[in-house]
Amino acid sequence: MDAEEFRRRGKEMVDLVADYLENIEDRPVYPDVEPGYLRSLIPTEAPQDPENYEDIIKDVERVIMPGITHWHSPNFFAYFPTASSYPAMLADMLCGAIGCIGFSWAASPACTELETVMLDWLGKMLQLPECFLAGTHGQGGGVIQGTASEATLMSLLAARCKAVRRIQATNSDMSEMEILSKLVAYTSDQAHSSVERAALIGGVKMKKVPTDEHYAVRKDMFMKMVEEDKADGLLPFYFCATLGTTPSCAFDKTEELGPLCNEENMWMHIDAAYAGSAFICPEFRPLLNGVEFADSFNFNPHKWLLINFDCSAMWVKKRADLIGAFKMDPLYLKHENQESGLVTDYRHWQIPLGRRFRSLKMWFVFRMYGLNGLQAYIRKGSNELNQNLLKRITQCREIHLVPCQLSGRFVLRFAICARKIESHHVQKAWQHITQLTFELLQEPEH
Amino acid sequence: MDAEEFRRRGKEMVDLVADYLENIEDRPVYPDVEPGYLRSLIPTEAPQDPENYEDIIKDVERVIMPGITHWHSPNFFAYFPTASSYPAMLADMLCGAIGCIGFSWAASPACTELETVMLDWLGKMLQLPECFLAGTHGQGGGVIQGTASEATLMSLLAARCKAVRRIQATNSDMSEMEILSKLVAYTSDQAHSSVERAALIGGVKMKKVPTDEHYAVRKDMFMKMVEEDKADGLLPFYFCATLGTTPSCAFDKTEELGPLCNEENMWMHIDAAYAGSAFICPEFRPLLNGVEFADSFNFNPHKWLLINFDCSAMWVKKRADLIGAFKMDPLYLKHENQESGLVTDYRHWQIPLGRRFRSLKMWFVFRMYGLNGLQAYIRKGSNELNQNLLKRITQCREIHLVPCQLSGRFVLRFAICARKIESHHVQKAWQHITQLTFELLQEPEH
Repeated sequence: MDAEEFRRRGKEMVDLVADYLENIEDRPVYPDVEPGYLRSLIPTEAPQDPENYEDIIKDVERVIMPGITHWHSPNFFAYFPTASSYPAMLADMLCGAIGCIGFSWAASPACTELETVMLDWLGKMLQLPECFLAGTHGQGGGVIQGTASEATLMSLLAARCKAVRRIQATNSDMSEMEILSKLVAYTSDQAHSSVERAALIGGVKMKKVPTDEHYAVRKDMFMKMVEEDKADGLLPFYFCATLGTTPSCAFDKTEELGPLCNEENMWMHIDAAYAGSAFICPEFRPLLNGVEFADSFNFNPHKWLLINFDCSAMWVKKRADLIGAFKMDPLYLKHENQESGLVTDYRHWQIPLGRRFRSLKMWFVFRMYGLNGLQAYIRKGSNELNQNLLKRITQCREIHLVPCQLSGRFVLRFAICARKIESHHVQKAWQHITQLTFELLQEPEH
Repeated sequence: MDAEEFRRRGKEMVDLVADYLENIEDRPVYPDVEPGYLRSLIPTEAPQDPENYEDIIKDVERVIMPGITHWHSPNFFAYFPTASSYPAMLADMLCGAIGCIGFSWAASPACTELETVMLDWLGKMLQLPECFLAGTHGQGGGVIQGTASEATLMSLLAARCKAVRRIQATNSDMSEMEILSKLVAYTSDQAHSSVERAALIGGVKMKKVPTDEHYAVRKDMFMKMVEEDKADGLLPFYFCATLGTTPSCAFDKTEELGPLCNEENMWMHIDAAYAGSAFICPEFRPLLNGVEFADSFNFNPHKWLLINFDCSAMWVKKRADLIGAFKMDPLYLKHENQESGLVTDYRHWQIPLGRRFRSLKMWFVFRMYGLNGLQAYIRKGSNELNQNLLKRITQCREIHLVPCQLSGRFVLRFAICARKIESHHVQKAWQHITQLTFELLQEPEH
């Protein structure tokens, strides 16, 4: 395929993509296929000679589409949202064409530098403490990881390395293996499975902290566990807090837990993979309070911030902690600017060596939406739903409410007004509201 | 940006991509920028309101291009090749539109199943032993990792887990931590830095085996190290062989080393990240001999097989070894077909949870090139160069050679013919040939 054919086929593909996304609602959201369906639909070996492009495109509909779970269908409510926007797709086309492997500054300066600046932009949107930003000439900075799993793993490995060094500095008789065998990490019993997996990979114990009635980790319970473990000779070194748990979107009490972690020399990582995008709205930002005590923070713009997978944003307070854990510099990856202190070589910040130019899609999306557009997108669901709910309530005429606006959110006010009101009136009203909400959420457009 | 605007902008982007790649040779291959150049070219914060798409595209040339190292420029000889082809880019556009996160079979059956079948196709192209293929109802199979670093890490972690279980089964008095502290992994002193890094992440010792005069690991030296370590009470459990080292494309002697690893219950992983693509040509396939002794094998189609980054192909002889190392099944990731034994949930095969539909680009490339086209691409460099070299030799008229064809390769024959020939004639001829080769390789089109 030469450039001329690519121009033609590329434009056809753009239409195919737009057609697919415009008409996605007409497709069954979950495929009706049995395991192994695909193997019988295509040959058992690659063709010897080139095939026609038309045949391949026909096979997309014949072979691929019947087996697709349509994550961008409005009928898809499984797992978690995954972001998708046209500007991000355009940026990804450009990323594919440039095709640089940005493991170091020299491997493509623009790839590294745009990433650093985009993580600063995003950090400012979240009102992260300045110490997490790179542009303030501090010790912190941001990086794009592929997934939250990798961000958690990197934070745990950095914490492990830092703990070993710190403990060895004051206990020179302890071997590294002895320290490793006594290290203990903690996370909520509601945390995502990838957190436990990070500890398995890193070869350290991890304990699950029981949560309160709101599925949040609280200080008292956590402190009790830490004290008991210390009394047993263990070495607490890491806590992964969750802001927005997978089962119920619960928030650990990081404002209570952070100071404890700091006092105990434990690394606090905050995993806000799903909920984190909401913190760009001032009305949700208080949920991030406590981040000032964290050593690292991560959320996934590829879930809810319109940037196509993969784009998991991670910040650390001290770049050196992350880099120091694994820095390896073979000669073939060295470059002259490396020791100037001015450049970032992102290969030290992540598990893989190679990396794509993922900050392009952040840049396109941030600019095409603006902060206002992104905030409006985050607020869209609840405001629209609340407005529709109020319409139903009004149409039914059983109860009467009026709405209000709070920090850009459409809020339904429920005021206890009548002199003759009893508890059963309130209960009946609440049942009515939840019933109408339930009906509304059943409808295909929500 | 709505679908209509995307149709227009997408087509413009297709032209931009084609223009960029058609004229890439006119751009300086390595950017002339100082560290930090980009930050001053763009605002310090994201815009409040949406910007014009035109302004963003103008900024690609103003902000991004001056800082790009052009990996696809014909003047780029650094690091390693990275694959790029139009069919792969088209497939990536489709991948972006579908935007599924294929961590399990149910998350998008086509995404998982096409990957399994594509890895079988590719395995057959490489003439991998059947035990590595999934379609033969054996215990093996393939997976796409992001990078070779991740493949190496996964193999080391699986080997670590398997070794701990095996040793505990016969030494019930040994704790897991005691075993971990005695495990020792090996690799060549020529191995890529990511191999050593995998051991650092996994928290196990790794020793470098000295290589012979061809930079290859040989059995004798390796066996000596293993015996000494065993005598010291250590537990050898893993060897990472390299086929095609980074500094000199050396090949470890896997046919000698494999049986030793098998006897010693050591996992043998083969890292052929760069050179592996060549094994699809029968004349290079003997270099892969010994793979039958390996537990896992990996190479990067995203380096030399026309499939854009990221696409690192990995096969294991026993899927259970990889899966068993970390299988975690929280309720929200379970699905009804999971226990049928028919489905593959690739999240257990890798470090991240989420994964893109990367097999689409393999499918497009394999079909658009066919095996013949792919083999011709691998052979292209050496055949064309050899033909040009022969032309120069003939034009200079200092010596006289004739070519031949061997298994599809254009070969220069150097026959010792004359009765009166002396050693210095051969030396002079060789000097002449290397001088002309040197001059040829200096020219921009090579």
